Amino acid sequence: MSPACWIDGQPAETLPLTDRGLHYGDGLFETLAVREGRIPRFAMHMDRLREGCRRLGMAMPDESQLRHELDLATRDQTRAVLKLMVTRGSGGRGYRPPVEAQVTRVLLRYPWPDYPASWMQQGVELRICRTRLGLNPALAGLKHLNRLEQVMARAEWSEGAPEGLMLDTEGRVIEGTMTNLFVSPGQDRLITPALDQAGVAGVMRRHILEQAQRAGIGVETCALTLDELLQCREIFVCNSIVGVWPVTRVDTRSYGVGPMAQLARQWAEQD
Amino acid sequence: MSPACWIDGQPAETLPLTDRGLHYGDGLFETLAVREGRIPRFAMHMDRLREGCRRLGMAMPDESQLRHELDLATRDQTRAVLKLMVTRGSGGRGYRPPVEAQVTRVLLRYPWPDYPASWMQQGVELRICRTRLGLNPALAGLKHLNRLEQVMARAEWSEGAPEGLMLDTEGRVIEGTMTNLFVSPGQDRLITPALDQAGVAGVMRRHILEQAQRAGIGVETCALTLDELLQCREIFVCNSIVGVWPVTRVDTRSYGVGPMAQLARQWAEQD
Repeated sequence: MSPACWIDGQPAETLPLTDRGLHYGDGLFETLAVREGRIPRFAMHMDRLREGCRRLGMAMPDESQLRHELDLATRDQTRAVLKLMVTRGSGGRGYRPPVEAQVTRVLLRYPWPDYPASWMQQGVELRICRTRLGLNPALAGLKHLNRLEQVMARAEWSEGAPEGLMLDTEGRVIEGTMTNLFVSPGQDRLITPALDQAGVAGVMRRHILEQAQRAGIGVETCALTLDELLQCREIFVCNSIVGVWPVTRVDTRSYGVGPMAQLARQWAEQD
Repeated sequence: MSPACWIDGQPAETLPLTDRGLHYGDGLFETLAVREGRIPRFAMHMDRLREGCRRLGMAMPDESQLRHELDLATRDQTRAVLKLMVTRGSGGRGYRPPVEAQVTRVLLRYPWPDYPASWMQQGVELRICRTRLGLNPALAGLKHLNRLEQVMARAEWSEGAPEGLMLDTEGRVIEGTMTNLFVSPGQDRLITPALDQAGVAGVMRRHILEQAQRAGIGVETCALTLDELLQCREIFVCNSIVGVWPVTRVDTRSYGVGPMAQLARQWAEQD
């Protein structure tokens, strides 16, 4: 089914061929869950978009206008996925951003994906991707439109595991192809990889970090090796759409669905 | 002036919003010079595109059809720039490439840029960009659509130097924001940075490498530090549009327009 689409708030199916989002991936995106006409953690999505615009030196779209456009796309929806892309707009030839760049808001609404409920309840297998994430502090953490690494990683397999684990070029564990990653060594502690060199700083990751701190759980954001991950008691992945998937298998190792993943799953279901 | 545009050979001004070129930068491009109705080094451009498609796991567009479309856009043009983008086409939500992906050919024709002739004759200043190139062997060398690093580097300055020098995150010299780089330590020798970790393997770079070998000039493709670059006798940058620009200033150091840049400039003018 084709998604419903809008550009700058108007129904549209196509984008000008001069848009810098196409030419350079010069833009950002947000993937928003819609539940009963509402977008959970909307303010966090806007925070990230604003911070991304700042780091790329792009204007942030007018927030009340954007809110209005998202409301219109959301209000009659029980369950849907919105993908919002904000590009640096049209330009001439060459990398240099136009002085008076007019950002473009592209909005697509997709049906809610039908992931099996068992993935959230009984957990998923995580395969280890060969494709590595390059290191670049200038882009790390941003949800920008340069996503060839994820495309190549996700193209590595077609059946079996619902998600793949991505390492950076130094061999550190960073994230899933479309999710962030948490591990627990037990004893009420949570660890999530630092994203200052590579990776996307997800809204669900932030929510879980905040809820864990509030619950008095020790959370650490740091470098994580594959060996350290494999030796952990619990592993789970998360994003705004899937919520939390406990990981029950990585490579040849098996893991149970433990108390930390169950807690995180409850947090993910909050509005 | 708006460029003339085509999609899959048909005049068009817009692209479907579901195209993976926009969503992920999932595609490649070629920048082709047009001179008197012809495209110099056309076969080299097709070689690179074919190799890029192979590495990204995309189908190469039908080459005779592509040749025909480029001919139509070229034949009445005295001087122009063609930008050909080949994307993995439309898809649903998610990074995984569609099993039956239909690649999209996007072609834009721009007026020839009016760079001052003095840049080719008397040389240019090269500034040193703060933005670094991340390392990723899986994508290195490809002229793919993930170009945020170049955008951010080119956004660092607006006046003065026509080109900026980009280092990788390890501090090695790689290329200009839109050009490849050669240095000469003198004595009929040429060095160009290896592009197995970062950078775009340009067609003009390949042409100069081949011509230098043919002329019996020692060419080396290897890692190059900024210190090594600064201590060289001659420096020049190149691409298919600018040809060769001798570099007469980097940071506080000055360089002359030497015999190697003059030779390379002659090679660049060949058809």
